[in-house]
Amino acid sequence: MGVMRLGYVHVKVTDMAEARQHYSETVGLYETGAADGKVYFKGWDEWDHHSLVLEEGGVGLVRLGMKVRKPEELAQFESAAQKFGYTVTRFSKGENAEVGDGFTVHMLGHQVDFYQDMTYLGVDVGVLNPMSHPRNLKGIGAPFLDHMLLKGDDLETAERFFVDVLDFAPVERMVASMDDGAPLIATWLSCSSKTHDIALLKGEDGGLHHFTFQLRDWGKVQDAADTLVHDDVPIDLGPTRHGITRGETIYFFDPSGNRNEVFAGGYNFNYDRPCVTWTMDQLARGLDYYKREVTETFLTVYT
Amino acid sequence: MGVMRLGYVHVKVTDMAEARQHYSETVGLYETGAADGKVYFKGWDEWDHHSLVLEEGGVGLVRLGMKVRKPEELAQFESAAQKFGYTVTRFSKGENAEVGDGFTVHMLGHQVDFYQDMTYLGVDVGVLNPMSHPRNLKGIGAPFLDHMLLKGDDLETAERFFVDVLDFAPVERMVASMDDGAPLIATWLSCSSKTHDIALLKGEDGGLHHFTFQLRDWGKVQDAADTLVHDDVPIDLGPTRHGITRGETIYFFDPSGNRNEVFAGGYNFNYDRPCVTWTMDQLARGLDYYKREVTETFLTVYT
Amino acid sequence: MGVMRLGYVHVKVTDMAEARQHYSETVGLYETGAADGKVYFKGWDEWDHHSLVLEEGGVGLVRLGMKVRKPEELAQFESAAQKFGYTVTRFSKGENAEVGDGFTVHMLGHQVDFYQDMTYLGVDVGVLNPMSHPRNLKGIGAPFLDHMLLKGDDLETAERFFVDVLDFAPVERMVASMDDGAPLIATWLSCSSKTHDIALLKGEDGGLHHFTFQLRDWGKVQDAADTLVHDDVPIDLGPTRHGITRGETIYFFDPSGNRNEVFAGGYNFNYDRPCVTWTMDQLARGLDYYKREVTETFLTVYT
Amino acid sequence: MGVMRLGYVHVKVTDMAEARQHYSETVGLYETGAADGKVYFKGWDEWDHHSLVLEEGGVGLVRLGMKVRKPEELAQFESAAQKFGYTVTRFSKGENAEVGDGFTVHMLGHQVDFYQDMTYLGVDVGVLNPMSHPRNLKGIGAPFLDHMLLKGDDLETAERFFVDVLDFAPVERMVASMDDGAPLIATWLSCSSKTHDIALLKGEDGGLHHFTFQLRDWGKVQDAADTLVHDDVPIDLGPTRHGITRGETIYFFDPSGNRNEVFAGGYNFNYDRPCVTWTMDQLARGLDYYKREVTETFLTVYT
Repeated sequence: MGVMRLGYVHVKVTDMAEARQHYSETVGLYETGAADGKVYFKGWDEWDHHSLVLEEGGVGLVRLGMKVRKPEELAQFESAAQKFGYTVTRFSKGENAEVGDGFTVHMLGHQVDFYQDMTYLGVDVGVLNPMSHPRNLKGIGAPFLDHMLLKGDDLETAERFFVDVLDFAPVERMVASMDDGAPLIATWLSCSSKTHDIALLKGEDGGLHHFTFQLRDWGKVQDAADTLVHDDVPIDLGPTRHGITRGETIYFFDPSGNRNEVFAGGYNFNYDRPCVTWTMDQLARGLDYYKREVTETFLTVYT
Repeated sequence: MGVMRLGYVHVKVTDMAEARQHYSETVGLYETGAADGKVYFKGWDEWDHHSLVLEEGGVGLVRLGMKVRKPEELAQFESAAQKFGYTVTRFSKGENAEVGDGFTVHMLGHQVDFYQDMTYLGVDVGVLNPMSHPRNLKGIGAPFLDHMLLKGDDLETAERFFVDVLDFAPVERMVASMDDGAPLIATWLSCSSKTHDIALLKGEDGGLHHFTFQLRDWGKVQDAADTLVHDDVPIDLGPTRHGITRGETIYFFDPSGNRNEVFAGGYNFNYDRPCVTWTMDQLARGLDYYKREVTETFLTVYT
Repeated sequence: MGVMRLGYVHVKVTDMAEARQHYSETVGLYETGAADGKVYFKGWDEWDHHSLVLEEGGVGLVRLGMKVRKPEELAQFESAAQKFGYTVTRFSKGENAEVGDGFTVHMLGHQVDFYQDMTYLGVDVGVLNPMSHPRNLKGIGAPFLDHMLLKGDDLETAERFFVDVLDFAPVERMVASMDDGAPLIATWLSCSSKTHDIALLKGEDGGLHHFTFQLRDWGKVQDAADTLVHDDVPIDLGPTRHGITRGETIYFFDPSGNRNEVFAGGYNFNYDRPCVTWTMDQLARGLDYYKREVTETFLTVYT
Repeated sequence: MGVMRLGYVHVKVTDMAEARQHYSETVGLYETGAADGKVYFKGWDEWDHHSLVLEEGGVGLVRLGMKVRKPEELAQFESAAQKFGYTVTRFSKGENAEVGDGFTVHMLGHQVDFYQDMTYLGVDVGVLNPMSHPRNLKGIGAPFLDHMLLKGDDLETAERFFVDVLDFAPVERMVASMDDGAPLIATWLSCSSKTHDIALLKGEDGGLHHFTFQLRDWGKVQDAADTLVHDDVPIDLGPTRHGITRGETIYFFDPSGNRNEVFAGGYNFNYDRPCVTWTMDQLARGLDYYKREVTETFLTVYT
């Protein structure tokens, strides 16, 4: 009930030809449309029209979309978001290509769209006696958008919005220290059985740290790393395990400098699962569980 | 919201000493209590008191428990279950050891408990800057109960109960054929992002086909297989992949003959994901995606 | 020193178009030539002209080739083979396409060629600062021919030939029982650090049980299984682990019915490693370590 | 024929209790003896008395042992080593605990023992219908010593010794550049089907860069990494893949500061395999194929 998932990420890229090559041939997404200077992609296991929108002219996040399960919930969330105090604006079917009516919450310098309908494309393997995956995937062959990490200043308010208004759960949280009143550094929020559907990181409003595609397991993380080397894509961190969420990960950059992640594993979240707390002094192990060292770029570079 | 998960499975075993050995040393669960002829176990990543109850005297399922998120939902579900037409009986805190108040739905010859509270034990790794898992797990080291497969006659009604009353989704379904009115053979139902939290199989009311523990990935499925051979546990099927749900699996028997499964993988479910249909003529590939042959015992043996 | 490896396998196929499709698109070998009704293939990590020769007209083995390290060893082995008592015939450079001078030992109803020179093609990744593997492999993408299993009647003599004349070591052996004089059922012979470069199985002279391509690990064995299902290739056994050699395996059939295997793992062999003995009553676990059941076809079907 | 393998590594440690804990509980070797201030270890899959000797008092390499296949080869190698020009000294059975007669070559500031006999202990799984591995391994559970990397100044001469006298093959080589006469930086030398049994690195005579234990695959490399974090062992590099040899690796330090490695994968070497050349400008990718960055400690720290 409520928000089902992070439905799409819409980012700017400096060079569309390079970006198309990266997301099609390296990440292995399917290009599903191109219009008005935007190019649309989906993973092979996604049925909606797109989970990624690219737009030429710079770097960083334009907007992101949260897909809501039921039409009536859309209205309830809109009203609750207004009451919460964030600025809310509406969009109509078609304004946002292939997306139905919805509204945008302006928070942390980001535009977070909520929608309940997107053009349905289906999947190559079909829904009748399907194969486990398509025969010839390209590059990494990422199946699904997983989550993203937004930067912003007032994390406490933003977390409260996700929890109180949208019924997300804080699955893991990093605080500066265990002292009372120590600031929140980051929070991993789930609206599903995954360890996170969105995460927030203390920092400049509007900053995009990364967005992430799912992979099956540690073996596929290795295959992804091999592909990244083949395609000369710079790796920022990994392959390694996160202490936070236990997931297996590689961070890398698209040709414009937007950070991507591929991610596997992590435990199954349940609402009664005890929330995990990390303190800043354990950041290194939380981030790169194996090397237990902080990568400078990971902390400083974003778009 | 609503049902969070399959919280416990309570089964009979013919010999408690052997069963204890199997679930502790081979499956690698933690024994968390023993009283009144029952022995209680949990996986290392579970925080509640138990997810498995053993009771001496025969084989097969005694009851299963569904954990509900909020107290008020418990009352709503009870009322809705009664309206639906299934027999409903109440239990009070303590009748069901370590479990709070709740009610039981009598369906398909099974007793399905609903509860919202169980004694909290926590996890060995703790919730402050935790390690990814405990240092010395035994045997397979299963972290978590995943799902179970119940047998029963009137699957159509039971599926409707899970969907209409409990808000589960039918993620994959097997029908005898694509003809109108062809009977439902099995249904995989989810209340989470997993491919299934419970599944139902056409057959004798009250029959237990198997219950399942999660594993991380295909590598851990191999390690589990190695352990099963070491401990001379008969394997019924696997290691292989299911066509249905795409999960990686091994089926094996506990010393009493109850079928266990370890399971990894499968995709992330969302409520708007198109439901997959299997027809009986593709049963072999649906069950054992690699060998594409039906194992006789898998179809005929249950407890 | 001496024999370096099983260099090539030359088999008959009933339909060349289907066979070409199988070995190119499913197994993922490179086609390196076609002449005189024969088609030649090599794995991506092989530098010699071919490791597989197909010839239309039936099924089964035509010949196999053992590559010897030094020219002078070729003459020594020829002389020793004659002395041993097997029939030996010579072939000249070119009679055997792309292969230099050599000789053939006629044993167990098989023709075993020995050669020291084959046309060098090199590898796609090159030998200067190479990538770990080519970017776009097809299907299973098998890198290298690994070993084969020949059937024959007088295994004791054949094993003695490999050991005494060619300096192979019997790494694992299966005997009918531990009784004195119990017949040898199978022997796994190595001329390298691998668990076997050739194996012999009691049976009809001239019979081919299977030939095998290497894979990296258990994860790649799964990927191979997925590919076999995609391409509707029947699997005879696996994915599983062998008790014998510990290797991870899938057996499957080419469209003509010749049995192929993909194989990963197994330990490193050394000449002082104690030889492992298997008795027939443990055949099931030796063959399919996980299921511990004998597959009827595995024991009866060969070409 | 000739040298079969790196048979043992004998190193100094600053604190025997800590070292014992590390090699037994973390690396998972079996302690097989302790006498005269030395402690002996072997991997579970090794049948000889030891592959690792620890001695208290400092850090770094005391000696290493190469096991020769046949007694007569020992004499031949001794004579050839003397002719080659390296200093050669003899040792008698028992001088070197559990080791038979042999000789030591003094090269690159190292003592390289050659022997043909060591006390045989056998393996836990036995040699009759064995299990694939013991049931309860500790920590990483390393099965076998794999190779080591020695530092030394005159690499060209040392490589020539291994190739001309001992019949090793240079499998991969790193040179400063492709210019004629550019110095050799490192060489990976094999006497087996492995990518290397010993490697040499330009540097201070007598320096020990690391010694290495085999693991099965990428999944076991992850398990090893998890264990290293549990036991708070500092990781120097990895888990990653090497460009050089393609192997999967983690480098870490024992409590005294001696560098260990666990290693899986790599291709099968044959004597006719074309030698791979690396140039210094590609060192980063050769070392850490995924991150393509040089770790400062890896280049500067040794014992």
